[in-house]
Amino acid sequence: MPGHDSRKDILFTAAHLFQQQGYDATSMQDVASALNLSKAALYHHFESKDEILFQIMSYGMDIFETQVVAVVRNIADPEERLRACIRLHIDVVVGGREREITVILHENHALRPEEKRQINARKKAYIVFLENLIAEVQRRRGGRYAVRPRVAAFALLGMINWMYQWWRPEGAVKGEEMGKEYTALFLQGIFAKA
Amino acid sequence: MPGHDSRKDILFTAAHLFQQQGYDATSMQDVASALNLSKAALYHHFESKDEILFQIMSYGMDIFETQVVAVVRNIADPEERLRACIRLHIDVVVGGREREITVILHENHALRPEEKRQINARKKAYIVFLENLIAEVQRRRGGRYAVRPRVAAFALLGMINWMYQWWRPEGAVKGEEMGKEYTALFLQGIFAKA
Repeated sequence: MPGHDSRKDILFTAAHLFQQQGYDATSMQDVASALNLSKAALYHHFESKDEILFQIMSYGMDIFETQVVAVVRNIADPEERLRACIRLHIDVVVGGREREITVILHENHALRPEEKRQINARKKAYIVFLENLIAEVQRRRGGRYAVRPRVAAFALLGMINWMYQWWRPEGAVKGEEMGKEYTALFLQGIFAKA
Repeated sequence: MPGHDSRKDILFTAAHLFQQQGYDATSMQDVASALNLSKAALYHHFESKDEILFQIMSYGMDIFETQVVAVVRNIADPEERLRACIRLHIDVVVGGREREITVILHENHALRPEEKRQINARKKAYIVFLENLIAEVQRRRGGRYAVRPRVAAFALLGMINWMYQWWRPEGAVKGEEMGKEYTALFLQGIFAKA
């Protein structure tokens, strides 16, 4: 009998299956079986596989908003705020169970137009948050720099989000070292002279 | 009647369909119909959808090896070689028809083990090429730096390969500007002091 966390359990299990065998190849029956639920019980929580996918993506954005943006927002010094943001974003990407939730955000799945609009708006807000933060960090130091904040924001997202392609918990590069080296590279790189 | 380039035409068309509607949701019949071929004619060229996927990925790696690595190999100065490498890699990513071929390289599709081994070995060789080049650029300048060449290579791959998530030919950021700003950020970033 599913407990009160069953909706979240369904999302984690479905995200795991979508990662392992692909979204298209995973049926509602597969999700139900993996949870030892009847299909009827699964449909009681989610009306379709589409809805599960949308809820996984929404939860992925919740993770970035609560575990990165909300945490750093009150750090007064912009450079410290950017450093914390890089570290926390990497923590999400190298984190355990939530990794499979956030990976799905990067895959170009077929959401319905209204749902796609919602997810894209939240992704856009995160990019704008980063862009404004980088602009503030550059402005604080003064001078003219070769890299525009918007381009730098995409570079940073690429550096970190791409980690899911190659980074493994058991590999030679530890998550903490990644954070330090990526921060060093980026915080030096955005001050390249125009 | 297919001409002598028909194998390549099939790969481009299949890559386009895989991008548009997903690999799992695309049938051999879809590929044949899009090319105005009979299914028998398609099977004359490729024995299965798996084989088409593998050939697309192999062709994607050919593109990097011939249009990036082979072109820069004879540039004597390592920093110039790295700059050329960044520019040419971005050219592939923002390039027209070949973009859909290379995007498929990033998606975690189910290849057969032996094919996966082949593609991963070629990806690894590209990473090692970048890593050695970055090490040479750092060594030439002397000093101790915070970012290890392996980590820097992954950062660069992330910055550039992630572009397929957001960069559009009709968007505000032109491919050439991207190249300049990414090069400035990266060539400054790898010299962050230890």
